[in-house]
Amino acid sequence: MTPLIASLPAAVPFVGPEVQERSLGRSFTARIGANENVFGPSPKAIQAMQDAASECWMYGDSSSHDLRTALARHHNVSTENIIVGAGIDGLLGSLVRLTVAEGDKVVTSLGGYPTFNYHVTGFGGELVQVPYQNDAENPEGLLAKAVEVDAKLLYLANPDNPMASWHNGNVINDIIRRVPDGCLLVLDEAYIEFAPHGTAAKIQTENPNLIIMRTFSKAYAMAGARVGYAIGHMDLIAEFAKVRDHFGMSRISQAGALAALQDQEHLTQTISKVASARDRISQIAGKNGLTPLPSATNFVTIDCGKAGEFARAIVAELTKLGIFIRMPFAAPQNRCIRISAGTDDDLDLFEAALPKAISEARKKLP
Amino acid sequence: MTPLIASLPAAVPFVGPEVQERSLGRSFTARIGANENVFGPSPKAIQAMQDAASECWMYGDSSSHDLRTALARHHNVSTENIIVGAGIDGLLGSLVRLTVAEGDKVVTSLGGYPTFNYHVTGFGGELVQVPYQNDAENPEGLLAKAVEVDAKLLYLANPDNPMASWHNGNVINDIIRRVPDGCLLVLDEAYIEFAPHGTAAKIQTENPNLIIMRTFSKAYAMAGARVGYAIGHMDLIAEFAKVRDHFGMSRISQAGALAALQDQEHLTQTISKVASARDRISQIAGKNGLTPLPSATNFVTIDCGKAGEFARAIVAELTKLGIFIRMPFAAPQNRCIRISAGTDDDLDLFEAALPKAISEARKKLP
Repeated sequence: MTPLIASLPAAVPFVGPEVQERSLGRSFTARIGANENVFGPSPKAIQAMQDAASECWMYGDSSSHDLRTALARHHNVSTENIIVGAGIDGLLGSLVRLTVAEGDKVVTSLGGYPTFNYHVTGFGGELVQVPYQNDAENPEGLLAKAVEVDAKLLYLANPDNPMASWHNGNVINDIIRRVPDGCLLVLDEAYIEFAPHGTAAKIQTENPNLIIMRTFSKAYAMAGARVGYAIGHMDLIAEFAKVRDHFGMSRISQAGALAALQDQEHLTQTISKVASARDRISQIAGKNGLTPLPSATNFVTIDCGKAGEFARAIVAELTKLGIFIRMPFAAPQNRCIRISAGTDDDLDLFEAALPKAISEARKKLP
Repeated sequence: MTPLIASLPAAVPFVGPEVQERSLGRSFTARIGANENVFGPSPKAIQAMQDAASECWMYGDSSSHDLRTALARHHNVSTENIIVGAGIDGLLGSLVRLTVAEGDKVVTSLGGYPTFNYHVTGFGGELVQVPYQNDAENPEGLLAKAVEVDAKLLYLANPDNPMASWHNGNVINDIIRRVPDGCLLVLDEAYIEFAPHGTAAKIQTENPNLIIMRTFSKAYAMAGARVGYAIGHMDLIAEFAKVRDHFGMSRISQAGALAALQDQEHLTQTISKVASARDRISQIAGKNGLTPLPSATNFVTIDCGKAGEFARAIVAELTKLGIFIRMPFAAPQNRCIRISAGTDDDLDLFEAALPKAISEARKKLP
């Protein structure tokens, strides 16, 4: 191993639900912990993937041309402004590799997306973390810190995961304007389709200091197909060609994502279902004396009102009851639990289990 | 960009057939250039992928547990000895990242797999290349060079691409035995299922100096699904957890690969079809006065008997005629062209086009 690799921890950003199931010895009855979109992909996307299955003897198009072209049209940019990759996770890995040398500073929020942190640490970057402010990422604080430490990357998720909070696009646009040269703002908009109108930042492909990440994993409900994309200056996008796995995209996933993009009606329906599920989760939380936080995502973060141990006990009890959920990692946000928008059945199970979980947690942590 | 990235060329290992088609303005009629397996995946694998398509709202199992367990059983090793990744290309990238720091030496064959070289260069490694010997990789020469330069990695493909040549497994086993500590032999067996019995190296999971790469892209005909795996010492395999994209595997591809592995009968049929196609390609070559080389893969490398310009002209003429093929990059192997096992229709087209292509090439390079 290289010295850098030898220095890395063996820790994993997230333990997957299947891994938990095998360790528990049984299946979850409600899978509402990974912000997956239970309402499923467009039937047209499913059909496209089924049609492509028998053609998977062929490598995918190494340039994802058709998908990139459609995305470019969708966002009113050029194909050269779009890079497609194996999810935002894969793109973040490539981006960090492109921009972060050992010892370089990277600014993000304390308790922000762990997989981004994993990539930064994995390439020897030094994380500088800014606390949340009012359970939201702190754009001004992040920017000030990036300037202060001469950060190569500044990561900001809008809407945020795990807190479901968001800023108006104008707030973000103002930050973008002030990103110093030599720093790249990584704006993770994985959940943007669920957010109120006006949340998305202005796409500005002439700006070399901005890259916006989007995904088919959340609103398009294709997490398991691994398709994300980034929008940025064409010179920056071109750099990905130096590190990306050129034939690494699944041909089936390329076909599915293209069809999903073309079915905006399904997307609209999904967003509406997610909004209803969010409302119901909030109601369930309220009925149990917990405080749901506002959400611009496909999950609701619920303030359990005590320290992290209490939230952790609720997660543990729900897990025992067959409900897969997660919670924020860092204090004080770890007083919360995080529930993904589920089907009616999922939320029935959650509604039945939550009072028991709270009761057990209270017994253990009176 | 980091200094390393800024120093990298923008070159791409391979130009994909779709990219060529767009540049030509029309489609290839025979796609026999990327060693894809035209005979297609097992119908059971196709069915499994079609079934999984509607479930792709879920991330894939982050540990690919079922597939790894089945592979472990198939190879009579432990699950901990198997890492699954997005094709051998993806795994090679992770492996190079794990083991090669800037300036470290890596030994491979001159004219060997360009994507491996791409990863090495991409992580700042220094390639040390050993010429082919009799159109085959030179195991003794590679080992001697690895010892001489204190290489971190020694890459050897058996069977070889692009020459289709191979060594008996005992030759490889003997090299494995002598790999010095501190060096890791990367044995790329992407084409092993097409090779004569006895070509595969002995799997030895107690040996920390060996990692064997296999794929579902070739014999299993799932190149576009991106599933490869590596077999090695559990301590080495565990290191991949520090760099891999933990949720990066397509759920659809995981399901397809598992079903493909379980249909060994289809694999046997495919191998037989490939053998027939190889024979026919060799006959076509012979009838045209060219010399087919022996092949243990799903392609035939054909010696065109002159310098690289002549082979390059034949490739260009075949491309014009709608036939997608490739050729080796380095002299003197670039006197050859490389034809993947095609369907009867593919080879009818190749048979009809080859005499014209040779004739045009002779006119240009008399």
